[in-house]
Amino acid sequence: MSKRIYLDNAATTPIDPEVLAAMMPYLTEHFGNPSSIYSYGRETRMAIENARKLVAKILNAHPAEIFFTSGGTESSNTAINAAVYDLGCTHIITSPIEHHATLHTVEKLHHQHKIKLSYVNILENGHVDLQHLEQILTSSTEKCLVTLMHANNEIGNITNIAWIGNICKKYNAIFHSDTVQTVGHFPFNLRELPVHFITGAAHKFHGPKGVGLLYINENIKINPFIQGGAQERNMRAGTENVYGIVGFAKALEIATENYPTQSKYIRGLKQYMMQQLQQHIKGISFNGDTSDESLYTVLNVSFPKTEKSEMLLFNLDIHHICASGGSACTSGTDQGSHVIRAFNNNPNKVAVRFSFSRHNSKEEIDEVIQQLQQFI
Amino acid sequence: MSKRIYLDNAATTPIDPEVLAAMMPYLTEHFGNPSSIYSYGRETRMAIENARKLVAKILNAHPAEIFFTSGGTESSNTAINAAVYDLGCTHIITSPIEHHATLHTVEKLHHQHKIKLSYVNILENGHVDLQHLEQILTSSTEKCLVTLMHANNEIGNITNIAWIGNICKKYNAIFHSDTVQTVGHFPFNLRELPVHFITGAAHKFHGPKGVGLLYINENIKINPFIQGGAQERNMRAGTENVYGIVGFAKALEIATENYPTQSKYIRGLKQYMMQQLQQHIKGISFNGDTSDESLYTVLNVSFPKTEKSEMLLFNLDIHHICASGGSACTSGTDQGSHVIRAFNNNPNKVAVRFSFSRHNSKEEIDEVIQQLQQFI
Repeated sequence: MSKRIYLDNAATTPIDPEVLAAMMPYLTEHFGNPSSIYSYGRETRMAIENARKLVAKILNAHPAEIFFTSGGTESSNTAINAAVYDLGCTHIITSPIEHHATLHTVEKLHHQHKIKLSYVNILENGHVDLQHLEQILTSSTEKCLVTLMHANNEIGNITNIAWIGNICKKYNAIFHSDTVQTVGHFPFNLRELPVHFITGAAHKFHGPKGVGLLYINENIKINPFIQGGAQERNMRAGTENVYGIVGFAKALEIATENYPTQSKYIRGLKQYMMQQLQQHIKGISFNGDTSDESLYTVLNVSFPKTEKSEMLLFNLDIHHICASGGSACTSGTDQGSHVIRAFNNNPNKVAVRFSFSRHNSKEEIDEVIQQLQQFI
Repeated sequence: MSKRIYLDNAATTPIDPEVLAAMMPYLTEHFGNPSSIYSYGRETRMAIENARKLVAKILNAHPAEIFFTSGGTESSNTAINAAVYDLGCTHIITSPIEHHATLHTVEKLHHQHKIKLSYVNILENGHVDLQHLEQILTSSTEKCLVTLMHANNEIGNITNIAWIGNICKKYNAIFHSDTVQTVGHFPFNLRELPVHFITGAAHKFHGPKGVGLLYINENIKINPFIQGGAQERNMRAGTENVYGIVGFAKALEIATENYPTQSKYIRGLKQYMMQQLQQHIKGISFNGDTSDESLYTVLNVSFPKTEKSEMLLFNLDIHHICASGGSACTSGTDQGSHVIRAFNNNPNKVAVRFSFSRHNSKEEIDEVIQQLQQFI
């Protein structure tokens, strides 16, 4: 069996051995319940609070604004529900290319609680139509929640959330941004960024699965989404996933330290693959924006639809190349990508997402291009 | 420093090395996203489905009735919210000694959605007044949710949930039971037990933190509590905590294999400690039922209130003995135990919960008794 080529890093990434090493003490000897009052519990409580401080420092937030959850999906559910139940939002403005963690949550609120729902138009390059967003805000007479993702997980487009945050301020709207694809991949300065909620998931940047981040701006007060014990300063009940939280902070620390070199390296891989595809595969095109307003980790390619290309992901898998047709969270559903459909309804294309990490190499991309030439 | 004596196993337990060994491949090489369609994802998908089948087999349920969550608290939140939102319950019957994961959830539904709330009386021995339960059910004209825990986490009392399930059937009520202290500690036969929802948390039986169980009886259909991707057959969105799930199943498997010997051993420790306390410490009494209708893992002791005994937990901690004043989930709040208050309002007592696992020994209990004699 040839070596596996993993180009689905937007779906999940392997845990960095250094991250796992940081987690191990909490998977073994330091097992105390962080809510306990004796020293055995205080060790793990301290580990959580140190993780919180580290994450806060890296994102330039207050530790009191950092909450740990079970993942990005729970974080977005928490923020969106809180905006409606606790902050009085009765009109939600989102886009059709959001992750299902956002879309299904706002749809539920719309159907169950008659919350008004507006979708911002998507431009041909996959970007959110910011003028349309302002039009909706201008004409709304209700308290609005704007929920728009920072970077799209399928096509990689990056939205100017500072601009959106300022426009939200102007219209007194609450702003939640799903930043699952950018936390751990780009620097954040939350003291300057006008946003109420952002989210993160450790497994997107070489941390563990099952742990997420919810940033809640200190100026707003919400009730917990999951009710129970007083964990996370009464904001997220349930015994803390101590090793997950320690792993989140360690993975974010490593990602931040290596950002300048690794983002450059990974961006180089993406650009190399774009060049090689254009040079060697006829009729391909790229979905979304491929300029700097895009994730350096994600490349979404359209192949002309043929009998062969429809089997593309299957053939890639047989040859040990991992890529995806869209979001992993929706791949089980087999309905195609709601993101691609939102701005490109060409049925004669087969879209494949390649997503990169520091573990990939030009040699791997050469191998993939070679294989693609045979499959197309 | 003398060896630590850990008698807070109802709060959390150390991960069994065999459980961690089963998790390790999924913390290292098998990192694929279970929702991905290529073989790398299928490995982890398979691990999750095998875990589900194993858990189902042990609990005598269908695999389609087993859902993995981030913990017992999320599981209870899911069940209780679903009973109201999806199953039409407008009257919730619970007890004042439930875990806060239940109490705070039903209180929120009461305040936010005007759901009617009734509390079953608690008898002097800490048991739920089952006659009172039936009275409430008889006189209710609404669709009821009965949420009563299987075993109380602070005093250990075990409730006859088969009886409650049958009475719920009679009155067409939905029945949710918080079984966090009994899953992994007692055998379950869910095909015979008339219950709609039960819950579990791996870290209570030598599995990892951050992963829980929600059993949903196949005869009821609910919507997910956390919205998003199609994970857990559309019932719990978010990338699966693969190693957590693998760890849950392994820990349950080990617990089940060792149940006959270990339950006997641990029950012996509890009985030994009761005898030793009665013999050596004047004026003590036990909170709750100490007969067989009680967890073999939990012993709740009342000490006469003196200047010294008020410092008891502190002094135990200094001497490396871990015990708790109540639930770990509430120990941060410093308001005393809502459980003890519910049936014993004697302010001249100091309650301490000792809880045992297979790692404890008679020698440790002797040591604790010796120390207690000095502190009292």
